[in-house]
Amino acid sequence: MTLPGSGQAQLDRRRSAFDLDPGTASYSKHPMAQAQLSIDLAAIRANWRALADFSTGEAAAVVKANGYGLGIGRVGPALAAEGARRFFVAMTDEGVTLRRVLGPGPEINILGGHMAGDADQIRDADLTPMLNSIDQMLRHVEALPGHPFGVQLDSGMNRLGMEPAEWAALRDIALAQSPRLLMSHLACADEPDHGMNAFQLRTFREMTDGTGVPRSLAATGGILLGPDYHFELTRPGIGMYGGMPFADALPVATLALPVIQTRDVSPGEAVGYGNAWVARVPTRVATISAGYADGIHRALAAKGYLWAGNSRCKILGRVSMDLITVDVTALEQVPDALHLLGPKQGVDAVADAIGTIGYEVLTGLGSRYARTYTGA
Amino acid sequence: MTLPGSGQAQLDRRRSAFDLDPGTASYSKHPMAQAQLSIDLAAIRANWRALADFSTGEAAAVVKANGYGLGIGRVGPALAAEGARRFFVAMTDEGVTLRRVLGPGPEINILGGHMAGDADQIRDADLTPMLNSIDQMLRHVEALPGHPFGVQLDSGMNRLGMEPAEWAALRDIALAQSPRLLMSHLACADEPDHGMNAFQLRTFREMTDGTGVPRSLAATGGILLGPDYHFELTRPGIGMYGGMPFADALPVATLALPVIQTRDVSPGEAVGYGNAWVARVPTRVATISAGYADGIHRALAAKGYLWAGNSRCKILGRVSMDLITVDVTALEQVPDALHLLGPKQGVDAVADAIGTIGYEVLTGLGSRYARTYTGA
Repeated sequence: MTLPGSGQAQLDRRRSAFDLDPGTASYSKHPMAQAQLSIDLAAIRANWRALADFSTGEAAAVVKANGYGLGIGRVGPALAAEGARRFFVAMTDEGVTLRRVLGPGPEINILGGHMAGDADQIRDADLTPMLNSIDQMLRHVEALPGHPFGVQLDSGMNRLGMEPAEWAALRDIALAQSPRLLMSHLACADEPDHGMNAFQLRTFREMTDGTGVPRSLAATGGILLGPDYHFELTRPGIGMYGGMPFADALPVATLALPVIQTRDVSPGEAVGYGNAWVARVPTRVATISAGYADGIHRALAAKGYLWAGNSRCKILGRVSMDLITVDVTALEQVPDALHLLGPKQGVDAVADAIGTIGYEVLTGLGSRYARTYTGA
Repeated sequence: MTLPGSGQAQLDRRRSAFDLDPGTASYSKHPMAQAQLSIDLAAIRANWRALADFSTGEAAAVVKANGYGLGIGRVGPALAAEGARRFFVAMTDEGVTLRRVLGPGPEINILGGHMAGDADQIRDADLTPMLNSIDQMLRHVEALPGHPFGVQLDSGMNRLGMEPAEWAALRDIALAQSPRLLMSHLACADEPDHGMNAFQLRTFREMTDGTGVPRSLAATGGILLGPDYHFELTRPGIGMYGGMPFADALPVATLALPVIQTRDVSPGEAVGYGNAWVARVPTRVATISAGYADGIHRALAAKGYLWAGNSRCKILGRVSMDLITVDVTALEQVPDALHLLGPKQGVDAVADAIGTIGYEVLTGLGSRYARTYTGA
């Protein structure tokens, strides 16, 4: 989806400043022994800004799962510097980490709510759990009376949040405790024409109209559905990190994988585990230092490519734990590194080849990469 | 494959001491807000011991990829305590970490060889690179003359190591430098009847017979192929961690995932993203605090189960980033946590459901789990 309004102008300006020429050389000037994951914090900020500008109310920032795999220690402060004042994480532990990173001030909301045993951390780190059930509500008000909370409502996804009947029974009691936020989550926001969106919007309105409490229904997909879905707070997530359904998001992650060696393989020779690929013509094969232990799924082998500038290099045979073998026959010169993520191939293209979504590619990015941050 | 010989007796003794009763209750006595990954170091030691006892020569230990995802800081010392004196990692960075963990003494071999820029680390951490090409050989002897090294040979997998022709040209020069080890790796060791095994054995012999240098060809699968494949050093890897093809390996990892809430879903109601699952009968659904950001692939949704004691609970709808929804209708009582890994379901069963191998399940185990080690 393309972003309407002022956010798009922001993005266009930023894009022109961003070097998207895929013909430029390697991202590292040094000899490369280790895979290099480069994360553009300015792009994350610009993507958040675009989604925030399009939101009719305030925009929070979703930084769960270690900032979608990109590093909450850098992503959190960058978003705070851009103006985000509310953050969402999945679990209390993540909230404690984020509080340490951000310091006092910003509101940190826990989507998983108040889990048993978490009261001390919630209090000490000043976290705001989104209570998902009567059990969690009772746990919260007993353990931490007067401590801020929000309520997550189930508007039809049947995953997290209070059911309509549960909420009806609890609503007056909950509202008397001054919740900070009433929120729900859309199951099909990535499909704008899906009838589920209007159904959930209607259900959420029925559950919350007249409460006077700030409301939030939309993450990235919901923001792009338009202002009806925005309410007082939106929750940009995947779009900040350069993933669909925000088609105009600036790319955020670049991943360059070092070449260990190359070899010439003759017709009839096999490459990799299980002899899964057999050469039919003379082929030059490069062995790359990265594998599924780095979050590059074995499933990528079937349809995956790495890139050398503008040239794509097909993955041959299986993805190993620490190694990938690719066809570099067509390259005049084999560079020090090939790109899995870069100007020619983003997280969603990799996800398509694996048969998953960009979110899973991002959150799977491994711990062995040397991570560098630009645009801070 | 079942292990012949003395290793099996070791394993049987250990198995009887290991509580495999799947009816026992939760692994944590405390309220569970965070997923608990429990790693049995004694099982890792017993598995290594069994494979080492069966090896005709010495057995090393492969601990690349953070000890196959289980934590090199604990796995490395446990194996050293069991008697392992040689370790294999993939990259120099991993070797540096392992040296810090183990201290001086054990030999640490780098399968990726000597990459550009790594000389200082290789020297300072006393690492032994397995040189994979003439380029690496030149780099090594130029940067670190006299520093120990091994040579990796390509016996047919066409992934890492010197080609027969390359080796023929370099062999005399290399042998004059006193390599510590000549090694190669089998492409099809998991398939004992595959003709590739005998082909690679013959090629490896042709390349190394008469050199007088210690040799290594077999990892776990190769060990199980029998003594012809053992040479002076074997390299147990996946079998230590409880994965196939070592069918008699003791299970090593237990993973319990907390229940956030449960709800009753009526026929016609959908669960999760994309309305991917729709109830046909009244169903009780538990929402679990773990998802693909924790290494539980989205692909598991199609055929995956979690376990409550002896009862299996089908995954309903999609696996989300931080959440899984499962069918708990049949349970009399919903426990605080369900098991992804445990007595009723090991890494290979999970791998089967995803369409991958146990190795990828292990190395994907996420960083948000609370990790506890037993049997140290």
